[in-house]
Amino acid sequence: MRALYWDGHELSFNTSYPPPRSRPRIEDGESRIAGATGSRAETSGAQSAVVKVHLAGVCSTDLQIFKGYMGFKGVPGHEFVGSVSEGPRDLVGKRIVGEINFACGKCDSCRRDLGRHCPNRAVMGILNADGAFAEYVSVPTANLHVVPDNVSDEEAVFTEPLAAAFEILTQVQLDPGDDVLVLGDGKLGNLCAQVLRLTGAKITALGKHAEKLALIKKAGVRTIQLKDWKQGLFDVVVEATGSATGLELALSAVRPRGTLILKSTIAGNHQVSLAPIVINEINVIGSRCGPFPDALDALAAKQVCVTPLTEEVYSLNDGVAAVGHAARPGARKILIKPS
Amino acid sequence: MRALYWDGHELSFNTSYPPPRSRPRIEDGESRIAGATGSRAETSGAQSAVVKVHLAGVCSTDLQIFKGYMGFKGVPGHEFVGSVSEGPRDLVGKRIVGEINFACGKCDSCRRDLGRHCPNRAVMGILNADGAFAEYVSVPTANLHVVPDNVSDEEAVFTEPLAAAFEILTQVQLDPGDDVLVLGDGKLGNLCAQVLRLTGAKITALGKHAEKLALIKKAGVRTIQLKDWKQGLFDVVVEATGSATGLELALSAVRPRGTLILKSTIAGNHQVSLAPIVINEINVIGSRCGPFPDALDALAAKQVCVTPLTEEVYSLNDGVAAVGHAARPGARKILIKPS
Repeated sequence: MRALYWDGHELSFNTSYPPPRSRPRIEDGESRIAGATGSRAETSGAQSAVVKVHLAGVCSTDLQIFKGYMGFKGVPGHEFVGSVSEGPRDLVGKRIVGEINFACGKCDSCRRDLGRHCPNRAVMGILNADGAFAEYVSVPTANLHVVPDNVSDEEAVFTEPLAAAFEILTQVQLDPGDDVLVLGDGKLGNLCAQVLRLTGAKITALGKHAEKLALIKKAGVRTIQLKDWKQGLFDVVVEATGSATGLELALSAVRPRGTLILKSTIAGNHQVSLAPIVINEINVIGSRCGPFPDALDALAAKQVCVTPLTEEVYSLNDGVAAVGHAARPGARKILIKPS
Repeated sequence: MRALYWDGHELSFNTSYPPPRSRPRIEDGESRIAGATGSRAETSGAQSAVVKVHLAGVCSTDLQIFKGYMGFKGVPGHEFVGSVSEGPRDLVGKRIVGEINFACGKCDSCRRDLGRHCPNRAVMGILNADGAFAEYVSVPTANLHVVPDNVSDEEAVFTEPLAAAFEILTQVQLDPGDDVLVLGDGKLGNLCAQVLRLTGAKITALGKHAEKLALIKKAGVRTIQLKDWKQGLFDVVVEATGSATGLELALSAVRPRGTLILKSTIAGNHQVSLAPIVINEINVIGSRCGPFPDALDALAAKQVCVTPLTEEVYSLNDGVAAVGHAARPGARKILIKPS
């Protein structure tokens, strides 16, 4: 099949990448048939489906991977919508999105319902599992969520980052009186601002780019451009800049005993003084993947607006150019359409 | 009076430093008499007392100040026990310890009972207020706590760092089943381990120094020397090494969705990857000064044992040497006795 492949140094377009096969559940937990792609997801005992990819999104994490993050090799891509082409009969033909953490289902974390933190997990397109920049991708059936009919592919492809924004609400109780600052006007910042706004809290989005802030403003959020920023203190600050330099500003904008949500995963080291965390007794909460059902519900109810975030759709054949485009400063969401 | 003085570059012993004077409460919030030492605490409207210092402790934060932390100039020292020599009649002659944050009493933080985070605060020996490495120190009366008779000066001088250890229990709910790692076998690590042990949680102290770990072990805490450390995961990790390098180990020892308490205030920048905070959705909680009453109660009830932490007592005249001793790697608590 056609797929993009990252060998640790270079991203290339490949026309004969081994296609995935669905795996039946093997009760002893190990498949005796070697997975075609060698992904851990394929060799574990979990039942999986082969998904025909309709659309996949290029995420900042993908760009971090191309800088060495996670030391990943394989097919990248973890934001996708597709349809099941092979797998359990009740799923075949269904339009689905898929959670990206492939848990073992057996460890302490999995037993405590923390499968997204399973230490044995593979992560689609990030760790030991091929991703969605391909015609087909293999996904454990437990990870699949059927897309409501009134949610288009162009909306559903945002489910994964939108779920990541909803994760914040599973970690922090926001009240209508709370002053919240979302730092970053990119895709994730936009989605976080829209989701946090649903709580009734007072949301301010701070970013560099007038045109991106205008998109957030359209969703009913107060916006400030960085050049007009005057130091203020907020109950909750969400760091979603995707850049190492955002952290210092974020720390300076949290009130004493306030909360800082870290959403950006940055490859490499930060150079930052953490003394403000101690002095101001700040609560820093790392926040990663989130609940897909909440994201799909919000899309179906038209509570959030995601399609204006898309900048351009590329064919898979032009996938290398698509990733190059996504890496341009200020680029909005770049989508890849395999077929 | 005699006092140690830090001019931003050098610590010196001074025999004619201006002594503090107590201030009556001025209703319009501003004293019209210039404070002798120029400390903000003296010029604010808060009623203050002059305290004759019996014993003062050299803290890691003092050593950080001598590296440039907070840009402080003046008399350092914020751990002390003394007796009131001038001030309200009911306090004169009483043996007291004092909280180090001198709050304005009027701002939003103060109204929310967060005086320790008052943005207008002075901090004894750290920010705009002279400290306790002197014969006398001026302290707002609201900050004073009378020392129970069965607590000696040698114990009471540990009230401030012991309260800082108790602060953790105001921020995190520890259950008897919880696995807790205290990183650092210095004074603060020792006190944290002893205090957290009172909850019934399973405490492990990890440090470099066999003899310091032996002290912690005596208090009934399981200890591991760093050379014997095998990577494990803990529900709660307390970073109390006082060193920038402790953070990376601390981050690696917190289980996903676990809690990391930061107690060390480090001058300068950390060089560290914060990606694990996001990936493992760790809750990082900065923790600083704590409740003096809890510390005094624990000392009075003999629930914690602090005097073995003292290494040597110096006269104030030898204060510069005392600070030099405190800075030696592996030094336990160094005390300064002004009279």
